[in-house]
Amino acid sequence: MSILIDNIGELVTNDQAQGEGLLGIRRDVAVVVEGDRIAWIGPSGQKPAADARIDAQQRAVLPGFVDSHAHLVFAGDRAAEFGARMAGEPYTGGGIRTTMAATRAASDDELLGNASRLVDEARRQGTTTIEIKSGYGLNVADEARSLRLAAKLTTETTFLGAHVVPPGSDPDAYVDLVKGDMLDACAPYAKWADVFCDRGAFDGDQTRAILEAAARKGLQLRVHANQLVAGPGVQLAVELDAASADHCTHVSEADVAALAGSNTVATLLPGAEFSTRSPYPDARRLLDAGVTVALATDCNPGSSYTSSMPFCIALAVRDMRMTPAEAVHAATAGGARALRRDDIGRLRPGARADLTVLDAPSHIHLAYRPGVPLISTVLHNGVPR
Amino acid sequence: MSILIDNIGELVTNDQAQGEGLLGIRRDVAVVVEGDRIAWIGPSGQKPAADARIDAQQRAVLPGFVDSHAHLVFAGDRAAEFGARMAGEPYTGGGIRTTMAATRAASDDELLGNASRLVDEARRQGTTTIEIKSGYGLNVADEARSLRLAAKLTTETTFLGAHVVPPGSDPDAYVDLVKGDMLDACAPYAKWADVFCDRGAFDGDQTRAILEAAARKGLQLRVHANQLVAGPGVQLAVELDAASADHCTHVSEADVAALAGSNTVATLLPGAEFSTRSPYPDARRLLDAGVTVALATDCNPGSSYTSSMPFCIALAVRDMRMTPAEAVHAATAGGARALRRDDIGRLRPGARADLTVLDAPSHIHLAYRPGVPLISTVLHNGVPR
Ligand SMILES: [Zn+2]
Ligand SMILES: [Zn+2]
Repeated sequence: MSILIDNIGELVTNDQAQGEGLLGIRRDVAVVVEGDRIAWIGPSGQKPAADARIDAQQRAVLPGFVDSHAHLVFAGDRAAEFGARMAGEPYTGGGIRTTMAATRAASDDELLGNASRLVDEARRQGTTTIEIKSGYGLNVADEARSLRLAAKLTTETTFLGAHVVPPGSDPDAYVDLVKGDMLDACAPYAKWADVFCDRGAFDGDQTRAILEAAARKGLQLRVHANQLVAGPGVQLAVELDAASADHCTHVSEADVAALAGSNTVATLLPGAEFSTRSPYPDARRLLDAGVTVALATDCNPGSSYTSSMPFCIALAVRDMRMTPAEAVHAATAGGARALRRDDIGRLRPGARADLTVLDAPSHIHLAYRPGVPLISTVLHNGVPR
Repeated sequence: MSILIDNIGELVTNDQAQGEGLLGIRRDVAVVVEGDRIAWIGPSGQKPAADARIDAQQRAVLPGFVDSHAHLVFAGDRAAEFGARMAGEPYTGGGIRTTMAATRAASDDELLGNASRLVDEARRQGTTTIEIKSGYGLNVADEARSLRLAAKLTTETTFLGAHVVPPGSDPDAYVDLVKGDMLDACAPYAKWADVFCDRGAFDGDQTRAILEAAARKGLQLRVHANQLVAGPGVQLAVELDAASADHCTHVSEADVAALAGSNTVATLLPGAEFSTRSPYPDARRLLDAGVTVALATDCNPGSSYTSSMPFCIALAVRDMRMTPAEAVHAATAGGARALRRDDIGRLRPGARADLTVLDAPSHIHLAYRPGVPLISTVLHNGVPR
């Protein structure tokens, strides 16, 4: 089955060798998809025949969004806590325990149904790859269950037993559990390991111990770093060659320099700052230092209950002073880098056929038209939805 | 044709006599629509039979959004200007002239097609009433044409010949034209008259002259007031009994007191502050003084190209410190007050059957889940879409 996409107004390839600027923009081109891959990109005048056709009507075509940071395995919501926070209470992360209790009490079907609904909601908004973390089970059985369910929805599964110390547990004993039995039970379902290294969660020594144990088990690493306060998270991420340091809201000069000289992406999550009414990370400082930046939703019921990558792009432009091109790049190629994937986030022959057709003539409209559902067609693995 | 809506999780009536709190929330109730009106609201156990049924699946049902401020009759877009502004250039309103040229050059079909597409886009996001202004024609023929086209899409049409002085025109001569021939040509199609009373647009004397002439022609009044700088707009609006003073970003104590003692609504347009990266109006100060507040999109290609009332609600909560209930009230009942309508913005027997079913259990989710398309069903005049 092949599909020809033509009459494209603007093709964002994210491949500077193919097109103009950071986004590698091409015009007057067509795209052919064969099965789950991009087979051909070339001048409209030379477009080959195909089994089916999508007329892009002079609208923009982009790589599908890569949401490299999401917490989708949970039950319940925390709308009341959100309301209280908007009335002035600070975000402390304490509400994670509320979700833990609901998650443990939920059936597999409930958990999978909820996560699946969010994946579908994200897909409708242009997200074709989504990472899913555990982290609301916080015991061996429920963390393993969370990852087993997550693995039904994505290949990018992340073990986050070290999200918070569950109530009543001794921190050191819990760290031992996480890097021992819990890791053993979770590793079969997890590609990644992650630790929330921050005030009120895990310190540098605990984070290092857990991540090193996970690496020995063959998991790749990512870190929740420096969201609430400055700390060792970013530099640990770099030292351990984590794919990504996520949040990076409170970073030092040394943190920025470490990221710039590394293979570790800074994943910014402006939905979290929006929903906790916190100051945004300084994206310009990171970009200007040469750090690779990704944007992701942090979708979770406590601190960022959005599944919308377009919303995150609009915030990144308005409140983090990224250009529309930088924000779109971070939401596609940046996310792919944060997952160490080279088959997604770019449109070129051989890449996965994950792409979106906007209901707009250019990528700029994702920031220029905030809040407006602008995704008209999504192809995932070559299949239109 | 009657429709029963049942299995409602939360019914926002905006009628404190019917339910709890500012939003008059009711639970365990059903709604019956007959033709274009609400016929019955009562306990689920007593629900009558109807021709059709909508199962709300325990989700929230709200009055349709009333977007009382939108500029939808134009051609072209200003994505490049937006990009430049995000790179640091201030918003001066000067780009209105770019849109003026494109609007004058466009055919009726193009203008109507564009406006109609935006009305439809807004409808999908829950907006059941939308005001539409002229203001990009800026000559007699094109202002009249804009309003003639707008009247095909809404009853809430607003003559805004005094949007800006067109390039090359003498300001005093232009004011004379607006309150003379232009008003004569536009009045048949316009319910409202509006003036952009601000720096770079029209001063207090000019605004008064135009609004008084419009009132003599039978038009009702609204004012673009105090967006860019403090000025006489708000107090003129109150003095002339305008239905609304729109923007209110820079207001004095006297302005707030005048609004609080009046029948004039303060319509806040956070999409404009978002898209021009400007400070938000102080909603709390207005609300705490007893001013009636409305939220609207200001949808226009220059300073706020969003059609999304849910997005404006999320901004109002996050950045203007309104509670979710205050923001939802402002986007429904507040908008109705700003249009001096009592048949919309509330759900009670006899009201227009304009309502939305959210894909969420409560109104809070409109702020709690920013950027996510949460509108599942919209009834407009009793007709589901
Ligand atoms: Zn997270
Ligand atoms: Zn306006």
